[in-house]
Amino acid sequence: MLAMNSLFRPINTDLTHLRVLLTAGPTQEAIDPVRYISNHSTGKMGYALAEVLAERGAHVTLVSGPTQLTVGHPGIEVVQVKTAAQMYTACLHYFPTATLTILAAAVADYTPGTVANKKIKKQGDTLTLELVRTVDIAARLGQQKRDDQYMVGFALETDNELANAQAKLIGKNLDLIVLNSLNDIGAAFGHDTNQVTLIHRHGAIHRFGLKDKRAVAHDIVDQVSAQLIHLQPHS
Amino acid sequence: MLAMNSLFRPINTDLTHLRVLLTAGPTQEAIDPVRYISNHSTGKMGYALAEVLAERGAHVTLVSGPTQLTVGHPGIEVVQVKTAAQMYTACLHYFPTATLTILAAAVADYTPGTVANKKIKKQGDTLTLELVRTVDIAARLGQQKRDDQYMVGFALETDNELANAQAKLIGKNLDLIVLNSLNDIGAAFGHDTNQVTLIHRHGAIHRFGLKDKRAVAHDIVDQVSAQLIHLQPHS
Repeated sequence: MLAMNSLFRPINTDLTHLRVLLTAGPTQEAIDPVRYISNHSTGKMGYALAEVLAERGAHVTLVSGPTQLTVGHPGIEVVQVKTAAQMYTACLHYFPTATLTILAAAVADYTPGTVANKKIKKQGDTLTLELVRTVDIAARLGQQKRDDQYMVGFALETDNELANAQAKLIGKNLDLIVLNSLNDIGAAFGHDTNQVTLIHRHGAIHRFGLKDKRAVAHDIVDQVSAQLIHLQPHS
Repeated sequence: MLAMNSLFRPINTDLTHLRVLLTAGPTQEAIDPVRYISNHSTGKMGYALAEVLAERGAHVTLVSGPTQLTVGHPGIEVVQVKTAAQMYTACLHYFPTATLTILAAAVADYTPGTVANKKIKKQGDTLTLELVRTVDIAARLGQQKRDDQYMVGFALETDNELANAQAKLIGKNLDLIVLNSLNDIGAAFGHDTNQVTLIHRHGAIHRFGLKDKRAVAHDIVDQVSAQLIHLQPHS
């Protein structure tokens, strides 16, 4: 993999000393000690980003929900979390010192309002689960973002993809949003490949073809790297 | 593993020609194309049972929910399912020809009444999920069980463990129930060890110590094997 990569791509350490906060994977929201709500994110896209960023010299703090993946690069520090609330707490801790933040995790939007401390026993024919909104991590970090920070979000959409993604980009104060469409074959959850559209804050839109997630990670990092030079220095 | 095993336990092929239906792992119940409800079962206990049964000569049909596990023994045929409904369909298919059925899967009791075909977008501060009961696989198979069939269930309880497990044993027409307590440290979900209590239809109760799940599998199979000789021949 490394050999192949270095054949076709010059070894690039353009991100040396860059501090990155990166989230990946799903979250798990407990219903009771046994049951939970989760989603089909495997973390592959986020972990590919972590590796590419580290290989290019960045120091990456990877805040990861439960996945089957592991990292091998010494430039990646992993913080394991389970719930959306834990992921938010970890992000708050690392965000102020990160020049680049990439929110690739599929965070639960809703979590059970109360968690049963004993396994819920079967009773009636129906069960009503009352869910409450989790904290919107991207929106909260977006409110704190300084001019010397750059933030990338992900959008997974099933319809009105472009319009929904653009609304998210502005609403959460992101600099770049990576749009995954569930309508694209071979893209997003569970696949080793992905097909993304990058939408910049300044309006530019780049649609890429279906690629290996590692190649997609390089595409994303290339576009981010070109933008980082425009950041205001930290006052 | 095999070498260790044969040192301490004579090679036993007491189950040659026995046809076994075995379920393992969790189920995943879709909320929408992205989100689902599941549970913390890893499938380790069920897969350990499959291996031990196959090594002892049985032909095992393993109906498995989504797990990270694989099987290597040629005596194990794997049927992959995702939902409780799919697991029930698979069980109905294999049950009539199985002399021994072991239901070790952690099947969802409730599933969303309607599955959204598009990703549910964030709207209000709360979201109400209406869940409906899934088919009770053990109870349905118990109704069909013939005198030449033996059926084992599992109970995972957090309180009134013994009474709840005994009620399940009778209510579902099982011959043996394996009780896991969530109150035991190192037992049940996610662990490599387990601590079980076996409750027989005829009243006997055996409480075992904390052991490797493979050793627990042998304990269960030993007790079942001793009972199979009492079955009525298929008329």
